Amino acid sequence: MWAVWPMWPLANWGLPMAKPSMQHAYAVIMAGGGGTRLWPLSRQSRPKQMLTLIEERSLFQIAVQRLQALLPPERILVVTSQQQADELKTHAPELPAENYILEPQPRGTAAAIGLAAAALGQRDPQAVMIVLTADHYIGNESGFHRYLEAAVELAQAGPLVTLGIEPTFAATQYGYIQMGASLGEFSGYVAHQVKRFKEKPNVEEAEAMLASGDHVWNSGMFIWTIERILQEFAEQMPDLHTTLQKVSAAWGTPQFDEVIAHEWPRIAAQTIDYGVMEHATNVAVIPAKELAWNDVGSWTSLFDVLPADANGNLALHPYHHDLDSHNSLIHGASNTPERLIVTVGVKDLVVVDTGDVLLICSRERAQDVRQVIEALKEKGLQRYL
Amino acid sequence: MWAVWPMWPLANWGLPMAKPSMQHAYAVIMAGGGGTRLWPLSRQSRPKQMLTLIEERSLFQIAVQRLQALLPPERILVVTSQQQADELKTHAPELPAENYILEPQPRGTAAAIGLAAAALGQRDPQAVMIVLTADHYIGNESGFHRYLEAAVELAQAGPLVTLGIEPTFAATQYGYIQMGASLGEFSGYVAHQVKRFKEKPNVEEAEAMLASGDHVWNSGMFIWTIERILQEFAEQMPDLHTTLQKVSAAWGTPQFDEVIAHEWPRIAAQTIDYGVMEHATNVAVIPAKELAWNDVGSWTSLFDVLPADANGNLALHPYHHDLDSHNSLIHGASNTPERLIVTVGVKDLVVVDTGDVLLICSRERAQDVRQVIEALKEKGLQRYL
Repeated sequence: MWAVWPMWPLANWGLPMAKPSMQHAYAVIMAGGGGTRLWPLSRQSRPKQMLTLIEERSLFQIAVQRLQALLPPERILVVTSQQQADELKTHAPELPAENYILEPQPRGTAAAIGLAAAALGQRDPQAVMIVLTADHYIGNESGFHRYLEAAVELAQAGPLVTLGIEPTFAATQYGYIQMGASLGEFSGYVAHQVKRFKEKPNVEEAEAMLASGDHVWNSGMFIWTIERILQEFAEQMPDLHTTLQKVSAAWGTPQFDEVIAHEWPRIAAQTIDYGVMEHATNVAVIPAKELAWNDVGSWTSLFDVLPADANGNLALHPYHHDLDSHNSLIHGASNTPERLIVTVGVKDLVVVDTGDVLLICSRERAQDVRQVIEALKEKGLQRYL
Repeated sequence: MWAVWPMWPLANWGLPMAKPSMQHAYAVIMAGGGGTRLWPLSRQSRPKQMLTLIEERSLFQIAVQRLQALLPPERILVVTSQQQADELKTHAPELPAENYILEPQPRGTAAAIGLAAAALGQRDPQAVMIVLTADHYIGNESGFHRYLEAAVELAQAGPLVTLGIEPTFAATQYGYIQMGASLGEFSGYVAHQVKRFKEKPNVEEAEAMLASGDHVWNSGMFIWTIERILQEFAEQMPDLHTTLQKVSAAWGTPQFDEVIAHEWPRIAAQTIDYGVMEHATNVAVIPAKELAWNDVGSWTSLFDVLPADANGNLALHPYHHDLDSHNSLIHGASNTPERLIVTVGVKDLVVVDTGDVLLICSRERAQDVRQVIEALKEKGLQRYL
């Protein structure tokens, strides 16, 4: 499971062949989410990054471990909540405990990134911060490393950098970035100015953007210097910046818990996209291709990530018997492995059994699980969420 | 549940307004089956007649109770196995214990009917025997009673009588009976000679028989005198007849258990259709219509028996939440009522959850559950059967 373990002692003295530009690079994994799109497997108390969907490691473990050929554990940070931290620490015990940055409560990605920036600013004023998600899949890890190296090199020249994903279909579930003029090559990859951020489109808009050739998906991965992002907060989100300064001043003092507990609930929740990126100037994007990137944003996304059988089925349950079913996902409850699931002649179905909940959903409606969750909330059935 | 209870004292002195022809009528309910077509709800240890599928009463209870406006409990017999008898007695405690006729092991419907005929022959040599199934649904109970009265009247004139069901569609899951010349009216219903019994047809044959107008479905309900059926056994199934004579001779003696335990395994299993009906002469059929008869022979048959909701769904589970599903059956496990079943955008699906087994089957493949059972046997998974 811990195949890279023997490399760690090396990592403590800097990774072999690490580029000079990476000496101040830090990853910040955003692991505070409580996403509901993989319900009923993902729950409020067991968010997506804790799930072992794709292999025996959780998505969070995978997110941490795929960085370890690039960065030593000391330079991998996690922003999460007190509630989730204990569990996440058991998933990645190789990270120093102080690298788990805890929010009293979630206040949007801007505040989470701000808190991590404040923490990093204390450690290394020259830090370059790589903001990553805890619950996305990236099939091509070495390609991912090379793009991050290019992005770090570019970020050290000043811009806010984001990795864009070259679209492979007219997705409506992602935001898009329109690329402008080329900024030249960085570590072999061409970077572009960002012309515009676009919200999730409808089908027609998505098709137009795919056809245009100058749009990429917004991956939620950002790379910038601490200096630059703190400056953006100061200009664009001055209230958040003031809060971060108060929290920063208390860091490491006995008053810290009291200060953050007082300040955090007062923050207006905001995303980094809307709070900073969309209105910033000097923003760059590196379009990445062939990363096999997937946000695992719904049950159907597993069909893009896992190998199906000859009938196109993903049978993820030890006791599954099928007769003539096609293109269906069967995910049984790990706590009831002896339960027999039988499918006969079904097509394009998602079946997820968690013991207390059984979801049976047509593949094309997998995004609508969110509507179910809203309806269950209204019915007072929170115990299933 | 026992709405007819107050009538029983009357029944003991003969039912009010019972026709003279019914004075020697006895019902024999065949309740030995271990049908698998409603698997996974029906099991080897919990066959279809014990299920409470249609209302809060089991199919067996319904079969017994629908006779009680026609016959006193003393004249309702049940043929079953030792294994099933204890459970069935709890479903119909109003029947005298001695009316449960027990087979050591099932040897086909001919032997089961023969054993009941032997028992009845001891009680009432003038008995008219009404052979019924324990696991069929009959919506029109008063119509059913009138047809049985007509059939008893006809049987007392000599023929082997069967109730045929006028077909309402080109069914392939039933055997058919071709009707010949009219035998005149009995209690207001026209009877016909039977020209031919036909096995379950393919689609083309079924359509031709439906179009012909002279075919009815074989319901498995038979009416005949004890004298006549024993004579048929003597002529057509002499080995079985000899066995029945030995068993009859031992009836009520201390040797009975030993005799039947010795004789029964030696019987060649055979159906009454093949063993007697298909080769008998003087066979009559009364075509019955508007009985709302259904053999509940597969999960899809429940759509004919139970009222669906506005979207055509049969939601038979207390915690079921649906979003835009159609024409689907959801049957949850009664032992896990708190389990939440959610369906989203599914169509023409049968979902049956029993706790240890979850079946998800397209409606058009419901008959193929039998193939699953064979496959599970081959895999050594008998514990799920």
